[in-house]
This record gives sequence, structure tokens and C-alpha cells, in this order.
Amino acid sequence: MQELLPAEQAVFNKLKASIEDVYHRHGFMNIETPVIDRTEILFAKAGGDTEKQIYKVVKTDESADGANQALRFDHTVPLARYVVEHENDLAFPFHVAQIGRNFRGERAQKGRFREFYQCDVDIVGRGELPVTYDAKAIAAVYEALKTFDLPDTKVRISNRKVLAEFLTLLGLSEKSAAISSIIDHAEKIPPEETTRALRDLNIPEENVVQITTFINTSGTPDDIENSLRSIVDTAPLAEGLQELRTVYELLEAAGLGQNACLDLMIVRGLDYYTGTVFEIFLPEYRAIGAIAGGGRYDDLASNFTDQKLPGVGGSIGLTRLFYVLREHDLLKIKAEKPIDIAVVPVSENERIFSVQLANKLRKTGKSVDVVLADKKLGDKLTYAAKIAKNAIVVGENEVKTNNLNIKNLETGTTSPLVLN
Amino acid sequence: MQELLPAEQAVFNKLKASIEDVYHRHGFMNIETPVIDRTEILFAKAGGDTEKQIYKVVKTDESADGANQALRFDHTVPLARYVVEHENDLAFPFHVAQIGRNFRGERAQKGRFREFYQCDVDIVGRGELPVTYDAKAIAAVYEALKTFDLPDTKVRISNRKVLAEFLTLLGLSEKSAAISSIIDHAEKIPPEETTRALRDLNIPEENVVQITTFINTSGTPDDIENSLRSIVDTAPLAEGLQELRTVYELLEAAGLGQNACLDLMIVRGLDYYTGTVFEIFLPEYRAIGAIAGGGRYDDLASNFTDQKLPGVGGSIGLTRLFYVLREHDLLKIKAEKPIDIAVVPVSENERIFSVQLANKLRKTGKSVDVVLADKKLGDKLTYAAKIAKNAIVVGENEVKTNNLNIKNLETGTTSPLVLN
Repeated sequence: MQELLPAEQAVFNKLKASIEDVYHRHGFMNIETPVIDRTEILFAKAGGDTEKQIYKVVKTDESADGANQALRFDHTVPLARYVVEHENDLAFPFHVAQIGRNFRGERAQKGRFREFYQCDVDIVGRGELPVTYDAKAIAAVYEALKTFDLPDTKVRISNRKVLAEFLTLLGLSEKSAAISSIIDHAEKIPPEETTRALRDLNIPEENVVQITTFINTSGTPDDIENSLRSIVDTAPLAEGLQELRTVYELLEAAGLGQNACLDLMIVRGLDYYTGTVFEIFLPEYRAIGAIAGGGRYDDLASNFTDQKLPGVGGSIGLTRLFYVLREHDLLKIKAEKPIDIAVVPVSENERIFSVQLANKLRKTGKSVDVVLADKKLGDKLTYAAKIAKNAIVVGENEVKTNNLNIKNLETGTTSPLVLN
Repeated sequence: MQELLPAEQAVFNKLKASIEDVYHRHGFMNIETPVIDRTEILFAKAGGDTEKQIYKVVKTDESADGANQALRFDHTVPLARYVVEHENDLAFPFHVAQIGRNFRGERAQKGRFREFYQCDVDIVGRGELPVTYDAKAIAAVYEALKTFDLPDTKVRISNRKVLAEFLTLLGLSEKSAAISSIIDHAEKIPPEETTRALRDLNIPEENVVQITTFINTSGTPDDIENSLRSIVDTAPLAEGLQELRTVYELLEAAGLGQNACLDLMIVRGLDYYTGTVFEIFLPEYRAIGAIAGGGRYDDLASNFTDQKLPGVGGSIGLTRLFYVLREHDLLKIKAEKPIDIAVVPVSENERIFSVQLANKLRKTGKSVDVVLADKKLGDKLTYAAKIAKNAIVVGENEVKTNNLNIKNLETGTTSPLVLN
């Protein structure tokens, strides 16, 4: 886990709070699920690498009630259980925000931690969920990141239906997993390597060219349709293309403008997405990769209920994002002294006055510490300078006259304290 | 774990945020430690029941790097490791706030959960920490609870040194654990039973009377001293009594006034406290028991370092507190509809206008949802009434004229929307 010093923790907390605030203003309701859940719930959707990464939990005294439990590895699986369990008390489509730590026993590596904050929005429908909701999830995630004051930020959106129908048209649906994986990795390798990887699948050269064109198709809905029309008959792709158009238009209305871009290179892994998929990038910092992403899943909770619960979600991996932004010096909020004012009584005689003064200052919303150490004034001021932006020294004279001065510990300037 | 519906979660979050805010204003710096820590760290201070309650964590693939890990059961043990690990980067006395979930595999019972939020403040000194700091920790916890707008709230404060010296004076120090335990439980049972329990220890009847007087000693520092003087020579108790006096005076200065009371019945379990101990109660709701507590510990991290790190801390068990306050109908913040405004487009034609309107409203800080469902207006309004306090219906006419009305869904009154 990424353990922070207080000044850095304060920056992290501000970023987290601003995500919370944006999600709330976009109409998402916060919930929290347990960190520990039953293994049959958590393992239901996991598989492959994820399953290996799950932490199981055992009571020390080996009692039966600790068995078959594990730590959640994402917010989506516990959400499925939550929605099914509380179905009768929720309004659907359920707009939900979840911000908390998840756990994966990954090999520790740069920017990857075994405990990490994820900040998710999801919209879960009952029976059906129009594609218009996909735009809501994307807009909330984008706007949350916008509060970070990042450089140029782009949302790239695709739709799995377009890809699936395209591969069916080409007669390649049985190679769909392999081709999707190649498209998914296309960004990180030179174009020749992508072409070679496609040829290695032993598909007709004509298809290799078509897929390469597909990968490099991006822009507005019209751009996408024109590009695809140049390589295939787009009629069978109509549903997916219409979804892309709807999402794009709503994002334009939501003010994303030039920052939203349709881009058929986006696949988003081999995950459970079934329609819209999106990822958010900083184009000037390609090495960082996606800083957020998400998409549409057709059925959230098929393991727990016969009810169909389609959903769309987006997630910001805040722990990793904080790490990489700090590494690239892209954090606009700077770490600062955590306390606003240190009140420093010269001697024991000014202790009571100082405590009372601190109380008054706190009522104005300030963070105030009283330096009570049994030390020389110089030592107390050294301590004050480490933790606080300002200091008020309270001596015999200050108590008598109530004339107080506040010293800015960064600039060194002193001014009279005005208390309302 | 206590799993909440969105409207209740919002209340819980507000209480948590107000604790965070008070702790911050009192000069405590927030940090977060990992939930998973090494067992040798977590088991160092645990023992007895606590040890049995610790959850161990195992990687699913049984790899070695998942071994010897467990979930934290309080904030204090990970804090000890944190302080030792980051010692050179911290300013001492280190004023720290920790708000997060801890984990204990207790048998589930009313108000007790296996995952529970604790909201802690601690002050950790290096080498020494004057008793004046004890008042700071108590004041922060008390002020945090004050924001809950609870009925009459009393802080009861004692000092382990007074108790220890008192029992030594009586020649009963070897029965100290048994007697402390009886005092600790005295509040919950009739006085006769306490007397009987003391007699069962086979101590002289004179001592039984003295201890009974001790237990019932409370009030101001003068009250305490007068009462004790009536049963013993208080000279050997001077250090503990002076500490009680100092803490009391500073709490008076901090504005606690009549709400702080010295009370020798307070022992705070058989925990590791060594000086000041305190608990906070709602006297009109005795059945609830202590709603917060804490005290002074002489050495935080003797397991990890030779450096002496004395500390004082206080903790609010927010999960349990929320549960009991709700049960007694003492939550002043009421659950309400989570969304401020639902914007309801009559048809698909008003979708874009509605999304743009929502964006404008969000800029004023409101929480706004756009009801995009492909449903009849009536159904959309039913949904709006479930989640939102107000609704704005956007039809053809509204788009044309930009004359919008906002309907209060609680009172039913409609008024023109004024957007600045």
C-alpha cells in the first residue's frame, strides 16, 4: 500500500473529496459495501489472474464463521450482491457511487499497490437501461478528473457491438478473442507489429488491411461511419453505430466537446463489457496509459438473480493515478503545512489564554494547534514552523492587552490579528 | 458489517465528515495506514480475546508473499509502526487523526459489527509528552461529538496513577487487576453487588468501605481531593491528582465547562492505559454506555523501537454510535432524498436541452440527475419523486421559451427557476 506522510495525505484527500463531490452533483448516491464478503460471491465473476489475486480471510481461532470469506477486489461484484439484496428499497435505474479500497495480491510494482482506492460510478437498470445512461457515467468520470486541473484530457469511446458485428461480417467471429486482444494492445506497439500479429492468425490479407483500417478509425460519428463504409457494408453495424452516435451527442451536450472522441482502437481488455467502452487518457503523457475507464455490461448479477440487471460504469484508480501524477509533477494541489495557525504560549501562564484563543480561531474554520510543550520558546517556534503556516506568540503582554499578532511563517511578515 | 441504503449512508457520511472537520480544526493531521499488515506487527500488542478476533489474510494461490498477514483490528497498532517507520519525517509531538474501518471477528451482535469505523485522534511524543496534551485529545473527541447535536453529553475523566497509588496505600496492589475490574463494572450493577464482589476478594471490610467511597468520588479537582482525604493520606497520590487538575483546568479553558467531570469510577478496562483515562456518556441514555473514550499510554511502540514514544488518544466508534443513535432516534440529521433536482425531459427531443440545463445547475453546487428513461412522463415523475427533492419538467414549450419551473416534490409547490 502507498503510505503517505500527512502533507501528502492531505493532497490525496482533497482529490478524493473532489471526485466524491462531482459524483454527487451528477446524481450518483454513495454507498459502501463490506470489504469482507463471502467467497462464493467474490469468486462468481472472477477468473484467471483475478482469482489468483484474491485475498482469502481466515479467523485466527479457525472457527467456522471465518471460513469462506475473502477481501473484495473491485466494487462491481459486491455491488451486484447489494443491488439484489436491497432491490426493493432502491429506485431503478440505480445511480451509485463507490469510493474505497479494494485488494489484490498482485506482485508489487511501480504504481501498483495491493490496497488501492477505486472511485466508481455505476448505473444499474432493472430489465433495461437505455444507452443514453452510458453518457452519464462517462461525463461524471470525466468531470471528476477535470477538477484535477490536468493537461489535455481525452475520452476515447468505442462500442463492442461494432467490433463484434465487424468481425462477423468478415467471417472472423471465431477468432474474435485473439483479434480483440491484438486491437487492445495496438496502441503500445509499432503498427508493423500489429500487422504481423494479425498475419500470424492466418487470416486473409484483405482482412488484415480491413482490421488495420478499423483500428485507426477515430473522430466524430460521421468520421467513423465514413471510414467503415470504405471497407465494409455498414448496415449490420447500425445498432452499435447508433449507440456511439447517441453517446457522442449527449457528451457534446454535457460540455465535453473536443475532449470526447470516438475511437475504435479502444477495446478495454477481454472483460465483461458488451456495448459502450471508454478510456480516458492524457495524450501528452502516453506512457501513463489510461487514467480511467469503464463501459456497459449486459447483466450485473446473473449469478445471484434471474432478474436482468444491465449496467454501465466507470472507474478512476485513484491510488495509481495519484502515484503517476506525482511522478510526472502533474499534481496541481501542492503539499503544504497541514495546520493553519500554531498558537504558542511563551510560558505556562499563557496556556489557558492560548487554549481559549485557539477555540475562537477554530470557530472561523481554521485548523489550530496550541503548542503546549514544556520547552524554550525557540524550540516551540521551530516546532510551529514545521507544522503550521502561521504562528501567534502569546506572552504576558498579549494576555494583558489582548493585542495579538499573527506571523506568516512562509513570508516572515507579521500583522495584527483581527478576530470577528 | 452495517450496510446502509443511500439515504442513510448520506447521514453516516455527514457525521463522519463532521468528525474529520473537527479533528482537523483541532490541529490533528490525517493519515491512513494499510488495512493489511504483517502479523508480527498486529499480534505484538494484541492478546487474549483480541488475538482470537484477528482476521488472517491468505493469498488464494497460497504463494509465500501472502503469508503472515492480517487485517488491522484498531488504529493504534499500525500507528506505532507508522511512527517508527516515518520518524524522521514527522514533527513531534505528532498530532494524528485516523478515520477508517477496522476488523474484528467478533460474534455478530446488536450494534457490534465485524467491520466498523473508528475515528481516532492520537498525540505521540518522542521521549516525553506533558499531561497537558491529554486535554487536547479529550477536547477534540468531545467537540467532534458536539456536532452531532446530542442530548446532555458528559466527559468523565480519571487517572490510573490515582487508582494504582490508592491501592498501594491500602496494601492491595497485588489484587489491583481484580479490584480494577470490579470498579470498571460498578456502573452496570447495583451497589450491593459491587460490595459483595469486593468482599469476595477477602479484603478487610475497612478497605471495602474505602474502595466504595473511591468509586463514588466525582466532581471538580477539589471535590476529588476532599473526598479522598476523608479516607486516606493523599500525599502519595499527589502526581495523579495534579494531572487530573491540569487536565480539568485545560478542559474548562477549552469550553467544556459543566460537561467535563472527574470521576474515579472510570477505569477503561484492563487495557494498556497508564495515566489519564476518559469516557464520554449520554447521562439520559445510560443503557448506551460509553460513546467514546481513550487515555494515556506510556509507550506506543516498545515492540518496534528502543525510543520511548508516549502517547494519548481518543476514539469514537462511529459504526456502533450510528447504530445506537438511530435506535434511540437521536440522529438529528434526518435521511432525505439524496438528489436536489431531477430534470425530466418530456420526450427525446428535450434530452440535449435537459443535459445542458443539468450542467448549469451543477455549477451552483446542486446534485442533479437527468431522467433519461424511455418511459411515459408519469413514470419518469414517479422515479424523480423517489430520488429527488425537486423536479424540473422540460417540454417543447420550455425549450422554446426557456421559461422553467421547479417543483418542490415534498410540498408540491411550483416556482419559476432562477438561474444566475
